[in-house]
Amino acid sequence: MPLPRFTDIVDALPETVPFVGPEAIERQTGIPVRARIGANESGFGPSPRVLAAMADAAPQIWRYPDPENHVLRTALADRLGISSDEVTIGEGIDGLMGLIVRMFIAPGDKVVTSLGAYPTLNYHIVGHGGVLELVPYRGEHEDLMALAEAAGRVGAKMVYVANPDNPMGSYWPVAEIEAFIAAVPEDCLILLDEAYGELAPADGLPEINTQKANVLRLRTFSKAYGLAGIRCGYAFGDRRIIRAFDRVRNHFGVNRQAQVAALAALADDDYLRQVQLKVAAARDRIGEIAIASGLTPLPSATNFVAVDCGRNGAFAMAVLKALANRGVFVRKPMVAPHDRCIRISVGPEAEMQMLAEALPQALQDAQGAV
Amino acid sequence: MPLPRFTDIVDALPETVPFVGPEAIERQTGIPVRARIGANESGFGPSPRVLAAMADAAPQIWRYPDPENHVLRTALADRLGISSDEVTIGEGIDGLMGLIVRMFIAPGDKVVTSLGAYPTLNYHIVGHGGVLELVPYRGEHEDLMALAEAAGRVGAKMVYVANPDNPMGSYWPVAEIEAFIAAVPEDCLILLDEAYGELAPADGLPEINTQKANVLRLRTFSKAYGLAGIRCGYAFGDRRIIRAFDRVRNHFGVNRQAQVAALAALADDDYLRQVQLKVAAARDRIGEIAIASGLTPLPSATNFVAVDCGRNGAFAMAVLKALANRGVFVRKPMVAPHDRCIRISVGPEAEMQMLAEALPQALQDAQGAV
Repeated sequence: MPLPRFTDIVDALPETVPFVGPEAIERQTGIPVRARIGANESGFGPSPRVLAAMADAAPQIWRYPDPENHVLRTALADRLGISSDEVTIGEGIDGLMGLIVRMFIAPGDKVVTSLGAYPTLNYHIVGHGGVLELVPYRGEHEDLMALAEAAGRVGAKMVYVANPDNPMGSYWPVAEIEAFIAAVPEDCLILLDEAYGELAPADGLPEINTQKANVLRLRTFSKAYGLAGIRCGYAFGDRRIIRAFDRVRNHFGVNRQAQVAALAALADDDYLRQVQLKVAAARDRIGEIAIASGLTPLPSATNFVAVDCGRNGAFAMAVLKALANRGVFVRKPMVAPHDRCIRISVGPEAEMQMLAEALPQALQDAQGAV
Repeated sequence: MPLPRFTDIVDALPETVPFVGPEAIERQTGIPVRARIGANESGFGPSPRVLAAMADAAPQIWRYPDPENHVLRTALADRLGISSDEVTIGEGIDGLMGLIVRMFIAPGDKVVTSLGAYPTLNYHIVGHGGVLELVPYRGEHEDLMALAEAAGRVGAKMVYVANPDNPMGSYWPVAEIEAFIAAVPEDCLILLDEAYGELAPADGLPEINTQKANVLRLRTFSKAYGLAGIRCGYAFGDRRIIRAFDRVRNHFGVNRQAQVAALAALADDDYLRQVQLKVAAARDRIGEIAIASGLTPLPSATNFVAVDCGRNGAFAMAVLKALANRGVFVRKPMVAPHDRCIRISVGPEAEMQMLAEALPQALQDAQGAV
């Protein structure tokens, strides 16, 4: 029987899951995840005030969400010191990325990103027929000037930078980011992913008012705010771009609990400061655990630490698998030379203790396996 | 300053909100909505077991949702008597529609739907450069044979039918739907929207095993299950089509509370039966209220009733506005001749009573206004 025909672009795409979730790993291996420190979630959880707001709002869940996300958008705009038509809300940064790529990338259009950077962006670009131009990292940093140069050279429609960076955890101070912005052609969209922005050092986030029309910034409630499961991110920038989201978005896509939870999270600055301190302490703790096993923790401006396992990608993969066998879920960079690292998310002390116990054993397992 | 260029398709699209939400109406008018009976939500709310499951799960909201939606997908497949790779979950039917259109509709491709049917589908089709072929209703029903004929005549990639229908509330029995399916060319995707399926008469839903490869069916937890705010819908059909969603979807798009709430809703058949009875009783109540004011309620297989106001579209709009001025939020069909109706969602008795009080006054207001 003939099947309805997919579009040519979709027909050529692979079926994929950008990240295999810990639940799928559990289903595949039969080994329960005891320490969930692989997806850069926040095991510290959201503010108790967020949970209280969600509980209060739950009986209203029969109502559709406000498709304009008005209350949350207004609160974010106030916080950022911009107008509410300069910010839009989406189903996490992943959802916003899909919309942004659809808005700007037609088949054959070029997008510049770093080799080994966030794979979900690449998924969306390929999914819309875009062409990736990949720029290697410089050391543990995205190579800003090489990215800007490539954007000009290939006539890119879009260039992507995460600051702080995932999966390496590095960051660039404001002056470097501003020089990068100045070096990119003005008709090329700069997608500045600040998912880890609330966890960055004070000099890691450019002023809002330095924005140019081609800079679109992305933030999320999934990381510092401990709300990965609720799916809520936002984009802010030039209002002509922000308004255009209304041409393509799923207007009722941001669920009602997300609107409520994000609003409450945004209002609880004390809790955010506590999390920032806990994240910093847990980064140090991961560093100590790594050093105690003879490994090298890399500096981090995020809620995870890339740990150099000292050998090649196969060895680091063996360490990751040995940790998984012991119920410790971590992830790792996949592109050389960073694939020598594993990437460990911060978490409460119970999870850090499980890591401390499992890592020496996992290293022994890995040395036997490779 | 030059702005990054949108794609040609997106550049030509209008900025839009497919439906103005009641919150936006409140902001515009300053009049609080007292009776929220316009968006075909379920004021009866979700099962208490759903709220309990959401409360239990809330502290885990720091975790990303399972991107494979495995538990919910398995439960739905069991319920439907199909394999778990024949069903996919999305951010409401609206979100799924966006993906389906992206999967099948390239610029210039034809889609057949009814004139005055669900506008969000049209939004997505136009948004992907598709071309709409609109078929008038036959009386208060979508004209199945005319839709099938148009699909063959224009070489449509897709044809859309909602059964039961929105905004008229009518439905076709199984035999008619099966004849329609048989009459549509096999390479044309039949998008069968069963958002109101759980509220339809027993003969309103085709057997699952009558499915052909080109039939993709859509259902939701927004209507009978009282979970419009959580954003969870599903599509089921041929596994080659279902698997292809993994090429384009936002894998982490379905939030964790939606997964939990939908699973609990699906397990509480007793509550669903109670809601079905309440909906039927409230439909009768709306009918009585309409008749008491000299209006004509149309038969409904859904959780709303289209009420014929007996004159033209301008008069029905005046009635709608007069109801809004009295805090009663309803919507209406926009295309003649159905625009003579207002569309009233069922709700608990308190809302029905507000309607009973406001409608005679609103009709007086409208008679003065038009």
